[in-house]
Amino acid sequence: MVNLDRLFFPEHVCLIGASEAALRGVTPYLFALKKVNFNKPIYCVNRKKKKVMYGLDAYPSILDVPGDIDYAIIGVPAEEVPQLIKECSQKKVKYVTIFTAGFSELGTEKGEKLEAELMKNVTNNLRIIGPNCLGPYCQESRLVNTEIFEIKEREGHVGYICQSGGHTSAFYFIGENRGFPFNKVVSIGNQCDLTIQDFIEYFTTDPKIEVISCYIEQVKKSTQFLGILEESSKKKPIIFWKGGHTIEGELAAASHTGAMSSSYEIFQSAIKQHGGIITESMEEMADLTLGALYLAPKKLGKNVGLVVAGGGASVELTDEVAKLGLNVPELSLDTREKIRELIPEVNTYDRNPVDLGMYGWFVSVFSKLIRYIAEDPKIDILIFQFMTERAPQFAERLNDRHIEKSFLKRIKRVVKTVSIPFICILPNFNIIDPEITKIRKAFIDELTNIEVPHFPSTYRAANVISKLIEYQKFLDK
Amino acid sequence: MVNLDRLFFPEHVCLIGASEAALRGVTPYLFALKKVNFNKPIYCVNRKKKKVMYGLDAYPSILDVPGDIDYAIIGVPAEEVPQLIKECSQKKVKYVTIFTAGFSELGTEKGEKLEAELMKNVTNNLRIIGPNCLGPYCQESRLVNTEIFEIKEREGHVGYICQSGGHTSAFYFIGENRGFPFNKVVSIGNQCDLTIQDFIEYFTTDPKIEVISCYIEQVKKSTQFLGILEESSKKKPIIFWKGGHTIEGELAAASHTGAMSSSYEIFQSAIKQHGGIITESMEEMADLTLGALYLAPKKLGKNVGLVVAGGGASVELTDEVAKLGLNVPELSLDTREKIRELIPEVNTYDRNPVDLGMYGWFVSVFSKLIRYIAEDPKIDILIFQFMTERAPQFAERLNDRHIEKSFLKRIKRVVKTVSIPFICILPNFNIIDPEITKIRKAFIDELTNIEVPHFPSTYRAANVISKLIEYQKFLDK
Repeated sequence: MVNLDRLFFPEHVCLIGASEAALRGVTPYLFALKKVNFNKPIYCVNRKKKKVMYGLDAYPSILDVPGDIDYAIIGVPAEEVPQLIKECSQKKVKYVTIFTAGFSELGTEKGEKLEAELMKNVTNNLRIIGPNCLGPYCQESRLVNTEIFEIKEREGHVGYICQSGGHTSAFYFIGENRGFPFNKVVSIGNQCDLTIQDFIEYFTTDPKIEVISCYIEQVKKSTQFLGILEESSKKKPIIFWKGGHTIEGELAAASHTGAMSSSYEIFQSAIKQHGGIITESMEEMADLTLGALYLAPKKLGKNVGLVVAGGGASVELTDEVAKLGLNVPELSLDTREKIRELIPEVNTYDRNPVDLGMYGWFVSVFSKLIRYIAEDPKIDILIFQFMTERAPQFAERLNDRHIEKSFLKRIKRVVKTVSIPFICILPNFNIIDPEITKIRKAFIDELTNIEVPHFPSTYRAANVISKLIEYQKFLDK
Repeated sequence: MVNLDRLFFPEHVCLIGASEAALRGVTPYLFALKKVNFNKPIYCVNRKKKKVMYGLDAYPSILDVPGDIDYAIIGVPAEEVPQLIKECSQKKVKYVTIFTAGFSELGTEKGEKLEAELMKNVTNNLRIIGPNCLGPYCQESRLVNTEIFEIKEREGHVGYICQSGGHTSAFYFIGENRGFPFNKVVSIGNQCDLTIQDFIEYFTTDPKIEVISCYIEQVKKSTQFLGILEESSKKKPIIFWKGGHTIEGELAAASHTGAMSSSYEIFQSAIKQHGGIITESMEEMADLTLGALYLAPKKLGKNVGLVVAGGGASVELTDEVAKLGLNVPELSLDTREKIRELIPEVNTYDRNPVDLGMYGWFVSVFSKLIRYIAEDPKIDILIFQFMTERAPQFAERLNDRHIEKSFLKRIKRVVKTVSIPFICILPNFNIIDPEITKIRKAFIDELTNIEVPHFPSTYRAANVISKLIEYQKFLDK
């Protein structure tokens, strides 16, 4: 295993190609590191200028920097990179991220050559991330890799490895807002040296990381990759989204034709056989990451209890879980009797799905009911729906200004004392009303506090459950 | 065809069961009608009280109301409904919505009997909507059916027919916020008299309605239904979402076993054969409704031009359209040369998908580019992505406070002068930040103004295109 401690926790960072232009080359790293008060020395290298952004001094070469450098980031024209790699090697830098693009990803002979050339200049155990990538992010050490990355308060437990810069930041956004903040992220680019499997292996040994998610376009050294995947999957859920599913997509990914990338079916089945979890889109990867974080540690079963306010919605939820092979068993008579003590017969249903009708908005009825259903021995998982869009109206009707908080308070009590997992369905009917957004944020924050994952549709929740059940089967083998 | 003009444009409304309790029975209709300043006479009936909400007078019976009544809504205990239907018939009311539940939907003998009994009391050509439903909504006449329905400014061109009260309001929310406001909506409940096909037929003759969407659990008189569907589909796109896909879902829907409802496969293929468009979820129904409104009037083809900022995203978009059988043809050399005059080679791609890299945020580059691609004879549809989540950063970087508006302004110019349809991909990476929400709202409002549909993923956009191409094949037959 490659020990990457000093990459994610460097004692000193050097920015090669820093300038005064906040938007160019490696300078955005400087902007970003200053923004989050990164508290280790940052050295800047600029061949021509003595001063760069923030009035910092610049050295003409990394060789002029006094003292050691753990980690350097290169952002200069591609042609200059091989020479700089030689200098970084001389300086005994431990890790270099090559932000610069214009190498093998172009698919041109020139690009390929340049990449091969830079690798020839590596000595003294220098390890390279990239080229054509953002490199590492670490929440704890405040090592950010663009101004998009901020340091949020909530401790992250997800590790993310990504072959695309854009998908790195997009997924970062999703995770931070959806309830699975990141502990460590790495954008790996062309993988000319360090590969996805090096990071998977390292993240697997990291006690703070509970789930690993990966966006990948190409696997290098596929036998090694599969071996590491299998060993790592025994310890943590590892989720994959592959770019270039289709022939058209592969052309777009411009991937080289290796055994792994030539057929998506082969890739998919190899991943599954070795314990990985396959997803088909960024949204699905987000669903699985959130789900794995909170559900994978629990024993999952196929029998779902559904609690919802509305007949149509109860049909909808039932269809969606049944489509994915889960069961909606009829509740025990005992549970049904308890339900009937709380809600009348008209416009409701007590067998499962439990349709509460209007009573779904009465917080004490709702909370008693989810407890009864969760305690029913026939039920393995409880799924309930909450419509943030309707909350303002019911807040007014029921004279409870923060009705969403009242719900969460009660749900928290039930979740804490009942052993089965809970899932919340939170439809996104309205994504453009700032008021609804605030309610949704409060709701999601609290759900995250009590470790209840949320999904915008039951289909997506059921998909997560069924994929995690498959993963648990792999673990049980 | 049943002429339903006076249902949607009643000259007088009577609320049977109105009281002082704003939340009970039929009273929420009163609250809602007053809220939107419904400007026709509203009569209230209460067997016991002389005054109801807003200090309005109440009559002991509809028979005591002076003058005619076009439309009455009944919200009293189920047992009293048959007698009230008798009185409404006597009064020569034209239409009654029975809001009350507790009839055949219970699946009990008692419920079935009560529904049969009320039907026996119908005379004088009274037509019934329901029972167990909200009844009609009409934007133009301000006839609202709960306080959820408001009268928005933008004129609606969608007709929606729904068998579930909850799904009625949920879809109303989506449409009003997503860019397809409603012209007329009807929640039809148990269809003891007026059926979905009566409304489809009527909406088809309505010049203001361009697309008809339906949520249905059970079809009554299926031969008549299919005949009306086929005739109507020749005139307007008609979109279906069926509740009770699965055996489990059917049980939840408690539908009676008729030929149509016993098998979803049969239902699905019957709908398709007769020109209807099948969707599998409320989200998909929303996608198709929005798409049909703006895309169905145009000639659609399978050759898609993709414009996006970011390599990973360009792979993603390509995968997603290819999965659904659309093509991403290589652009003409001429177009590619024009593209290359605007963007450099590194970190971009000019063949299609067109990856603009960072240049995707330069509004003049972007707008020239989409014009070139849209004018390429190889391209039938142009799909571009905009990430509202990134807008604040680029607004700051590029010193353009309302960067989203600058984009829309330029896009508008191109859309107006190019004949092929445009589609915008607007990922929802962050649905809890009020600032992002505001930007997204501004963007969606403008997209709606220029009639460009938006989808949160390319897969969902491609699904809409491929289903509408199927529909156009039906029209061409």
